[in-house]
Amino acid sequence: MTNQIFIETVNNIPTFKKRFEIVERKGIGHPDTICDLVMNQISVDLSKLYLKETGMIQHHNMDKALLVAGQSENNFGGGKIIKPIKMILGDRATFDVDGRELPIGDFAINSAKEWFEKNLRFVHNEHVEYQVEIGVTSKEIRTIFENPSSFASNDTSVLVGYAPFTETESIVLNTEQHINSKQFKGSFPESGEDVKVMGFRDMSHVDLTIATAFVDRFISSENQYFQKKEEMLQEIDEFLKKNYDMKITAKMN
Amino acid sequence: MTNQIFIETVNNIPTFKKRFEIVERKGIGHPDTICDLVMNQISVDLSKLYLKETGMIQHHNMDKALLVAGQSENNFGGGKIIKPIKMILGDRATFDVDGRELPIGDFAINSAKEWFEKNLRFVHNEHVEYQVEIGVTSKEIRTIFENPSSFASNDTSVLVGYAPFTETESIVLNTEQHINSKQFKGSFPESGEDVKVMGFRDMSHVDLTIATAFVDRFISSENQYFQKKEEMLQEIDEFLKKNYDMKITAKMN
Repeated sequence: MTNQIFIETVNNIPTFKKRFEIVERKGIGHPDTICDLVMNQISVDLSKLYLKETGMIQHHNMDKALLVAGQSENNFGGGKIIKPIKMILGDRATFDVDGRELPIGDFAINSAKEWFEKNLRFVHNEHVEYQVEIGVTSKEIRTIFENPSSFASNDTSVLVGYAPFTETESIVLNTEQHINSKQFKGSFPESGEDVKVMGFRDMSHVDLTIATAFVDRFISSENQYFQKKEEMLQEIDEFLKKNYDMKITAKMN
Repeated sequence: MTNQIFIETVNNIPTFKKRFEIVERKGIGHPDTICDLVMNQISVDLSKLYLKETGMIQHHNMDKALLVAGQSENNFGGGKIIKPIKMILGDRATFDVDGRELPIGDFAINSAKEWFEKNLRFVHNEHVEYQVEIGVTSKEIRTIFENPSSFASNDTSVLVGYAPFTETESIVLNTEQHINSKQFKGSFPESGEDVKVMGFRDMSHVDLTIATAFVDRFISSENQYFQKKEEMLQEIDEFLKKNYDMKITAKMN
């Protein structure tokens, strides 16, 4: 293989011209999103630490995490957390440079804590336990990093990307972003951050199925729950009507 | 939405007619494959247990696991495991039916142990630690399962599938399966199960990059390592020439 770049154009039927389209979006409070974003934050912070301490970014892989569900006792007016959630941080990092040990484990936990504090209104330190399972980068891989001019690769990878979004993708993404916006949370503080939006387009008609958590401290009765659900759905309907011409039917489950 | 089934045909250019194609295959010893297959096995075994004990399959999600790398001291002629690998089993299951508690945790560990014993020659009980983090299915979801005739859905999901394989996909898949075959392991016991094959097709030429673990107890020196690597690659080349007409270049890294 040479260093050349090849571009192949393909005259396929673009998705928005197909009859059917299915799109899913998980919001910032969904466990999968939490794992991805926390690990991403740790990698960003770690890279800065390595740069500051060693002048270059050292080897690390930060994409394996497991979020173990806690247990809660839900009650109208406010329940309680019986068992905190557990965030298990996995994968690998460089722990020592030039004989100096870097406190990678504590550093990763701090990154994660800051992420929770910044992004989820109701998840605080006492609600999350941490288990650090970050292993040490293998000697073989470290040697590649010791000689940055070598440009050696330690893995095979493929990257896939696409743009722009179809109308259905924009609708699904922006509906989630709207529900997780400051403005929406101002009107509906009982709307939790764990939001999932599934969009199904058949021709020019989009069906949205919205799953959203409710925060029980803001809900005093079953009646109020159903009332708030109704009001949220109305607000979302207005948002969709104002911003999109497509026929959209939104349901909340 | 109705109960109808719609099929849309799309006249796109099939992948095998495009100039470029990239395909990756992780073999049975790759950590990602291990996680997927162990969790799948637990789900199959759990479903049988539920059927036997309760007459129906109870709710469970078994797709979250984390395999934490251990540590080893590699040596020509045979090294040793300093720290076992750790398999963290996550997700959710139904733990009690009609007031009877089912030993889900121990059951899941046994499934996993059997899987390792059956599928990986050199991974035995003492090499794997287990941490069970399987949570209890929420009450809300259980109620759906208590009334099987309701046909209610507790989630939104999309399934994607395709067939048949392109020639490049077949080559990549079968190269991995060949390296992990009994026959190949008979000729090359030093070839480990952690095999990854990456295929890149440019027009009618396929480049294969093969990563394969070596089992150190079968390798007595650096020379022998490079010799065995050479021999394996030759064997793979012959396998490819015998089975495929395409021009294939295989490298082992």
